[in-house]
Amino acid sequence: MSDKIRIAVDAMGGDNSPNKIIDGIGISLKKNTDNFFYLFGKKDLITKELNKYKSVQNYCEIINTNDVILDDEGPLTAAKKGKDSSMWKSIASQVEAKCDISLSAGNTGALLVISRLILSTIEGINKPALAGLWPSKNKLNVMLDLGANIECNEKNLIDFSIMGSALSKTLFNINSPKVALLNVGLEENKGHDIIKKTFNILKNNKNNNFNFCGNIEGNQIMNGEIDVIVTDGFTGNVALKTAEGTANFITKNFKKSLNKFSMLFSYSGLKQFSKKLDPRKYNGAILLGLQGPVVKSHGSTDALGFAHSIEMCSKIVKSNLIEKIKSHLIDVDQGSKQ
Amino acid sequence: MSDKIRIAVDAMGGDNSPNKIIDGIGISLKKNTDNFFYLFGKKDLITKELNKYKSVQNYCEIINTNDVILDDEGPLTAAKKGKDSSMWKSIASQVEAKCDISLSAGNTGALLVISRLILSTIEGINKPALAGLWPSKNKLNVMLDLGANIECNEKNLIDFSIMGSALSKTLFNINSPKVALLNVGLEENKGHDIIKKTFNILKNNKNNNFNFCGNIEGNQIMNGEIDVIVTDGFTGNVALKTAEGTANFITKNFKKSLNKFSMLFSYSGLKQFSKKLDPRKYNGAILLGLQGPVVKSHGSTDALGFAHSIEMCSKIVKSNLIEKIKSHLIDVDQGSKQ
Repeated sequence: MSDKIRIAVDAMGGDNSPNKIIDGIGISLKKNTDNFFYLFGKKDLITKELNKYKSVQNYCEIINTNDVILDDEGPLTAAKKGKDSSMWKSIASQVEAKCDISLSAGNTGALLVISRLILSTIEGINKPALAGLWPSKNKLNVMLDLGANIECNEKNLIDFSIMGSALSKTLFNINSPKVALLNVGLEENKGHDIIKKTFNILKNNKNNNFNFCGNIEGNQIMNGEIDVIVTDGFTGNVALKTAEGTANFITKNFKKSLNKFSMLFSYSGLKQFSKKLDPRKYNGAILLGLQGPVVKSHGSTDALGFAHSIEMCSKIVKSNLIEKIKSHLIDVDQGSKQ
Repeated sequence: MSDKIRIAVDAMGGDNSPNKIIDGIGISLKKNTDNFFYLFGKKDLITKELNKYKSVQNYCEIINTNDVILDDEGPLTAAKKGKDSSMWKSIASQVEAKCDISLSAGNTGALLVISRLILSTIEGINKPALAGLWPSKNKLNVMLDLGANIECNEKNLIDFSIMGSALSKTLFNINSPKVALLNVGLEENKGHDIIKKTFNILKNNKNNNFNFCGNIEGNQIMNGEIDVIVTDGFTGNVALKTAEGTANFITKNFKKSLNKFSMLFSYSGLKQFSKKLDPRKYNGAILLGLQGPVVKSHGSTDALGFAHSIEMCSKIVKSNLIEKIKSHLIDVDQGSKQ
């Protein structure tokens, strides 16, 4: 057990938990038995679920917690009263060095606040950011910030570029990720002051951990040319949700336009389409900038989606993301002195 | 001719002009002969096109201009040197009361700057906004600002609510349009300071020209529940382009998944789908807040798309949009005194 990756799971967060959590662990264990799961939550409920999945039991330990942070609780209220919650304890277990990473499908706002309260920020980072994966032509991009920071200055956006490129290397083995700023035009003089300043600093930055490619516009997010898309949390959140809404709208209308015969004739093609764009495949947003890694699974995903976020946790720990971020930060400092 | 709506057309703006301009006028005249077109541009080129469409000639007058503002010209450079351009002259014709509205498929940045230089802003408005139409479940929404103003304060966002609801009434005969702010959450305390202040003012606003419905998130833009979506130009532009990119991405992948038999079996359904979401149907963004109305057609649209923007011009003049905006502004002043 000692050489296994130790994942601290908030077993109470998200819809249909702990059922989907245990199911998800079951799915992930079929592919990968390198992980061990510390399950934080109500012991009786988790035990009941675990009894259904004997094969999972050997890879889990339950740590009983009495409270659950609800989805509609404000982050600050949750942080104040949540010290005996499954979410709090699962993150705190990283400080005691019991676990390597924390995973929750619970209340996002609370997770951001509690993670920050418990885990210190990496030296040099003032604002941790929420990074997500975005499907594009032939791969997945990293995009950040997706909503952790409503307002960001140029220092924050540069930190996001560094952390996002470390994540891109970690998840996709890209040597020098292409980084771009999300803007309203391609030219250097486009956008607000902060984005112009960021452009100017990144343009002159000598570090070679990533390849700064300038600005991109919203319609280029999915064209597959950029690996890391950097923006403030307000814009990133609006862009992400607008894309989700548009994808649902188009897919629904498209499916409506097909009759049964068409569905039958293109069964395998349509199945491939659904598979390629299945949001469960890229479930999991990563809170970057803290001394310990925290992954947020979508609250409404199912067991398969949760299994994908477990796979993400595994990759992050194996490739030592936090150390990668730290070394990138040092390189940038050196670069800016040149 | 005197009781016709007089549309000043920049006949040189956009791809494939003046050819598509004349074709577009031809298409619009088949439905509606209430318009008369003043065509600004190179007389020889326009005459050549007009000679192909005898039926259009009676509804047009050419005003020769020597310069053309190119798509890649900076707005300020264009404004400085563009006084004899088709774009400049077509907007200036509103000041001489020759025309009721101006229409261009040319350089958007230049059009914004030149329109503002020539046409005064409506009293009480400091920032004109670019409003566009966005398809939703069963109708079209108005969304603004789509990029005219990178930074906006609460006064600007309130003005956008007023102007957007006047436009919604004008185009869709909605009595009390539902207005919402684009934000990262539904709750009143979400988002940055400016958006919170705007929420608070609109919540307490007594005027009944529109119905303030609070915040919406990006995934709700297309659900058809809101008529007017208000945001700053940076966020609006990113959201619009992200939606365009997502729609293209999904549509391309979906079509790839269908084989020939499926296409054949669902021919009419797919045709209906394409028709419903054809961007030419909602081609035309409107610059709101000036003493005269200016419509921007998409540069890459074709004749049919251009015909739709002519139809939009016609509705705007017929329903007296500018006066409607002015009367809404007065009502809001009264409201805020209560």
